[in-house]
Amino acid sequence: MQRYTKDQLIHLVKTLFLKAGCSPENAQTVANMLIAAEMRGIPSHGLMRIKDYIGLWQKGRMNMQPIPKVVHETPSTATVDGDLAPGMVAGKFAMELAIRKAEQVGSGWVAVRNSNHFGIAGFYTMMAARHDMIGFAMTNANALVAPTFSLDRLLGTNPIAFTIPGKEEAPFTADFATTPIARGKLELMEKQGKASPEGFVQDAAGKATTDPSVLRQGGAILPLGGDYEHASHKGYCMGAMVDILSAILSGANFGPFVPPQVAYLDPKPGAPGAGLGHFFGAIRIDGFRPVDEVKEYMDLWIRTFRQARASEGNERVIIPGEPEMAREQEYLRDGIPVLPQVWQELVATAASLGIAEDQLTD
Amino acid sequence: MQRYTKDQLIHLVKTLFLKAGCSPENAQTVANMLIAAEMRGIPSHGLMRIKDYIGLWQKGRMNMQPIPKVVHETPSTATVDGDLAPGMVAGKFAMELAIRKAEQVGSGWVAVRNSNHFGIAGFYTMMAARHDMIGFAMTNANALVAPTFSLDRLLGTNPIAFTIPGKEEAPFTADFATTPIARGKLELMEKQGKASPEGFVQDAAGKATTDPSVLRQGGAILPLGGDYEHASHKGYCMGAMVDILSAILSGANFGPFVPPQVAYLDPKPGAPGAGLGHFFGAIRIDGFRPVDEVKEYMDLWIRTFRQARASEGNERVIIPGEPEMAREQEYLRDGIPVLPQVWQELVATAASLGIAEDQLTD
Repeated sequence: MQRYTKDQLIHLVKTLFLKAGCSPENAQTVANMLIAAEMRGIPSHGLMRIKDYIGLWQKGRMNMQPIPKVVHETPSTATVDGDLAPGMVAGKFAMELAIRKAEQVGSGWVAVRNSNHFGIAGFYTMMAARHDMIGFAMTNANALVAPTFSLDRLLGTNPIAFTIPGKEEAPFTADFATTPIARGKLELMEKQGKASPEGFVQDAAGKATTDPSVLRQGGAILPLGGDYEHASHKGYCMGAMVDILSAILSGANFGPFVPPQVAYLDPKPGAPGAGLGHFFGAIRIDGFRPVDEVKEYMDLWIRTFRQARASEGNERVIIPGEPEMAREQEYLRDGIPVLPQVWQELVATAASLGIAEDQLTD
Repeated sequence: MQRYTKDQLIHLVKTLFLKAGCSPENAQTVANMLIAAEMRGIPSHGLMRIKDYIGLWQKGRMNMQPIPKVVHETPSTATVDGDLAPGMVAGKFAMELAIRKAEQVGSGWVAVRNSNHFGIAGFYTMMAARHDMIGFAMTNANALVAPTFSLDRLLGTNPIAFTIPGKEEAPFTADFATTPIARGKLELMEKQGKASPEGFVQDAAGKATTDPSVLRQGGAILPLGGDYEHASHKGYCMGAMVDILSAILSGANFGPFVPPQVAYLDPKPGAPGAGLGHFFGAIRIDGFRPVDEVKEYMDLWIRTFRQARASEGNERVIIPGEPEMAREQEYLRDGIPVLPQVWQELVATAASLGIAEDQLTD
């Protein structure tokens, strides 16, 4: 597989988004976040998304020259209208606002409406950690998930991210969907002719199945837990909480009304809100105890978990964020691999913008 | 089964805790919360706990005359030292502080150390909802859970609760452990001679098992999801997040060091923190949009989910909190059932305090 340097790929993304009308600053923001996803080994939120973003823009569903605005606030809370921006632009604006509020009064909480897909949630929470804050980020997403007892898809895979800095240890960063699996992995299983594990999907009649293609046939992803016996209602609660914080507070679309983040699926008619929603939080760790006390104690937490006895066949307990950091180191050294079909999609997207392939990696 | 009125049981609990040295106000607080758990159909957090609380007090591990103190704060954050109080007393103090801070600056976030078992998390979040706020509550708990790939028990069942008020609809209240099951339900399965569903527990060697008795034999509860293939690392992340917010910020004990909430198990020697930890949050919904806009939109969310098509054999999608409210109505009308063995334990506990059985239901 062809590999590219981080700088090459950031240049590539900037070139495309500048051509689509983004300001240099916003093109840089989108590029930084998409390539951060690649670097962390989450390609489903990286280059693969560009064709969708450009497609949404071409259909007037994404605004490449947005002016995000604070529409309501208190000293520690705010709602931001994203002006249909790429989610990264609205998200960065909102997380920076949360951080400023935390600097002033200890914490900041910002709900966002009228936004789009915002990339990896962990990017925002790591922004907060650099200010000695805990970061929280979540977003709703188009409905693929049937809550416990539902035949209908009412929720997205609705991820939550959480970062707390350590002192000598790297930040603890958890970033996870509230479902056992994301759509991309189901598609991969289907291509590989594999069955999906039990408890991942149901068919159009609501029956448990291991057929990874059911999403295209009226089926649905299940909440974390799988079925009611295995406490899927807890996964449903987590996904619902993300949806409510992201949409109900801000006035974005919720649940089944969240606009699909691909150009070939139309938004649901009569959607009651504005675009897609996010929710961000930043809390100063010295809002609770002196910074060093908290960070040293966090180091002790990390080391305690890392040193626990591993079960057979496993090396050790994983600290959330460690695999992604290892991947970053590897890709910084060896370059980032790009699948041939993803590259071909990029070339086609570039061509639709009047950009030749050889301009992509100048 | 014998049934008692809410007032009878509150009187009973007050009698016991007054005798143990609680102030009338604190005895009332403990009674309100234990009986709220009974009323909501969560007896594992109700009368059953009294023998443990009294036992902890008799061993000097619970302080019945505590003076909780704010030890660090900013306008929107604080750490409270619970002075080894019953968790309800420390928890109520902390949640009221979070609500006051939210009134002033939009949100309040309070971490608590040096506390004990705090009852049902949802009680605190419903306090916030009565002030037109979203409430968050979580607590760590003694370690019964092996994170993904671990042989050791490092986390508790670490619940999260979340309440948002509706306008015409009752508040949405999610209150759930970050594991597929709690210890009490495993004990029940064992008594009934049932196997536990797959993905709930592992044995002392870390192997999957359906034997509900493994906790007494070095086994462990698994995180929500069950095994790695079914995304138990996401359940682990949630449980870890609760532990970190509850203990690392406040300086309470974390993970394997959380003191057991029963008198017959000693705390781990060399524990690095103070008591057990909680984390509370309150956010004013009018910190984001006018109260009525948010509440009406929340009603729409609830109705949309309630009206979704149900899968076969199920009546409809459940709105979190609804079953508990129905139970409250039922028990208010018919009385609260108390298991004979729970009653016998109460009588024995009362006797150890010099209280005769007939004084319990005066």
